[in-house]
Amino acid sequence: MTETTPPLAPGSTIGILGGGQLGRMLSVAASRLGFKTCIFEPGGDCPASHVANFHMKAGYDDTEALTRFAQSVDVVTYEFENIPTAALDTVEAIRPIRPGREALRVSQDRLTEKTFLADLGLTVAPFAAVDGAEDLGTALAQVGAPAILKTRRFGYDGKGQARLATAQDADAALATLDGAPAILEGLVPFEREVSVIGARGADGSVACFDPGENLHEDGILRTTTVPARLSASQRTDAVLVAARILNALDYVGVLGVELFVTPDGFVVNEIAPRVHNSGHWTQNGCDIDQFEQHIRAVAGWPLGDGLRHSDVVMENLIGADMDRLPDLRTSGAALHLYGKAEVRAGRKMGHVNRRTGAA
Amino acid sequence: MTETTPPLAPGSTIGILGGGQLGRMLSVAASRLGFKTCIFEPGGDCPASHVANFHMKAGYDDTEALTRFAQSVDVVTYEFENIPTAALDTVEAIRPIRPGREALRVSQDRLTEKTFLADLGLTVAPFAAVDGAEDLGTALAQVGAPAILKTRRFGYDGKGQARLATAQDADAALATLDGAPAILEGLVPFEREVSVIGARGADGSVACFDPGENLHEDGILRTTTVPARLSASQRTDAVLVAARILNALDYVGVLGVELFVTPDGFVVNEIAPRVHNSGHWTQNGCDIDQFEQHIRAVAGWPLGDGLRHSDVVMENLIGADMDRLPDLRTSGAALHLYGKAEVRAGRKMGHVNRRTGAA
Repeated sequence: MTETTPPLAPGSTIGILGGGQLGRMLSVAASRLGFKTCIFEPGGDCPASHVANFHMKAGYDDTEALTRFAQSVDVVTYEFENIPTAALDTVEAIRPIRPGREALRVSQDRLTEKTFLADLGLTVAPFAAVDGAEDLGTALAQVGAPAILKTRRFGYDGKGQARLATAQDADAALATLDGAPAILEGLVPFEREVSVIGARGADGSVACFDPGENLHEDGILRTTTVPARLSASQRTDAVLVAARILNALDYVGVLGVELFVTPDGFVVNEIAPRVHNSGHWTQNGCDIDQFEQHIRAVAGWPLGDGLRHSDVVMENLIGADMDRLPDLRTSGAALHLYGKAEVRAGRKMGHVNRRTGAA
Repeated sequence: MTETTPPLAPGSTIGILGGGQLGRMLSVAASRLGFKTCIFEPGGDCPASHVANFHMKAGYDDTEALTRFAQSVDVVTYEFENIPTAALDTVEAIRPIRPGREALRVSQDRLTEKTFLADLGLTVAPFAAVDGAEDLGTALAQVGAPAILKTRRFGYDGKGQARLATAQDADAALATLDGAPAILEGLVPFEREVSVIGARGADGSVACFDPGENLHEDGILRTTTVPARLSASQRTDAVLVAARILNALDYVGVLGVELFVTPDGFVVNEIAPRVHNSGHWTQNGCDIDQFEQHIRAVAGWPLGDGLRHSDVVMENLIGADMDRLPDLRTSGAALHLYGKAEVRAGRKMGHVNRRTGAA
């Protein structure tokens, strides 16, 4: 499929790498547009398999299964960015992957990502590579303390991170990373964190949802509130930042961009080449939500305009929050559960969207 | 399960008899609340199977399959009312069926339904039983012409119906029904048709969505517009009619009630003991739509309040309407396709919900 390929017809099959809650909600959105879905996921009773047409249960090192998966679908997308490169090579030899490899290359490595964003003229936190213990001193001198040492690859929800309040914490921080290549990032004093969920179609058109304001607890997103407390010009700037990234990556699909709001403007914290937890509010605030927007892009369909009809507060249900279900059922709010059998501390089990008024 | 049984826990399985578009949208709603679904449907590549956890492909006369189906789920519901009685007996011996048998008994037979509604003190069209050719004269004298001769059982979307403009059409009308027991209904001169989608919980609480105004073409629903053109007191009356029916049937689930608006008040046209095409607008006009409302009732969960946040026009996509997909994709409206492989004249392929403003 090239950019001039006609849009996918209903009845076509979209392959999704990864079977978690994002794959689950992508599958539901795909079904709404008449598409079938095939989930590739090593885990058995995974959330996405409950609502997909097909589930290929195999590992990312199983070239034969990846080949059959790619052959059985019309286009491939993914719900997480840390897919092994060899698996992507196998799939891409057979079917197009959207969003494309460049977005994955950039976002799989924090150092590459920071460099890419800085090269685009966007502001990022001060950063320096830490390939081994010997680099940490230089990096600290460059970035300053306090700072956060992060693995370059495979981090999520605050995992693979260690905070350095002072230079004395360096050895302990290094030890938690187990020798993995790392990046030291300076702390940005910010007023609030917002995120923009942007989308770019196969035709190059861009549509962004209104920025949401995020609150984290223990490194995990707790709530997103829309509208975010931003001025009109900040709102425009946030969308322009997302559009610049989308265009630079020749991106097709939905992208999450986390921004720190500082007195000096936006600092880009990180990007995620996929639908994003901070965009779940769109399910109850927009006619076409981030999941359908992503499927539309991947299928070569025209994007929705991102119009928001309601103000929404999205709250994640994490671990023992499931004990609050009896109350949530009577709250009149929209509940979205992920079908995970086992409740674990820190595990995202679902979310609640509370509409707080008309937009 | 009795009415005092605790609510179903997420992870439980809801069995659905019937695998069409209503079963499909019920499955999606169930997944949103963390439930699994098992579809019982003789057809192979049916719409609901695409989004359900399990699909039992067997006929309604297959007692062994029905038994396995019932044993594999926690509660049973259905997407159509014309399920053979023997199949229901098999299932009900093992698991509760919601809505219950009384609603099915009443709605499976137009004569029983009309009698039930009249006994409730509700206004219905004049009607008379037509068990054979010899009854038609008496019935015509009683009901008057013009009138409609309908089979008592298994009619839908205008099928199994013949119109009598005058008494001279009697023989031709009878011939089209092929000797099936019938009912003759007088034509009601009405200003418009509206429907109420009502719900009753396992705890006896009732919640109704705002009435929608329906337009039919060739006996098939074309559009539903919300709000309907009704006065405030008509709106209240419509909801009271639905509530009276729900309570009389000791109903658990969502029920569709079609009403003719006449200068003398409402005439009840028919009821459907299930989610209803004229309630599809709730997907984009309410936080909790008719499908989730039904699943909540069936699962013993508290109902949503039925609050409408937006005005909506729902348009059915029937047969060759699928040729209009390219335009619909760019309309910014919410598209809902049913995943049916084959386009046929008169076949419901999907619908479009256009939000027309805040409620």
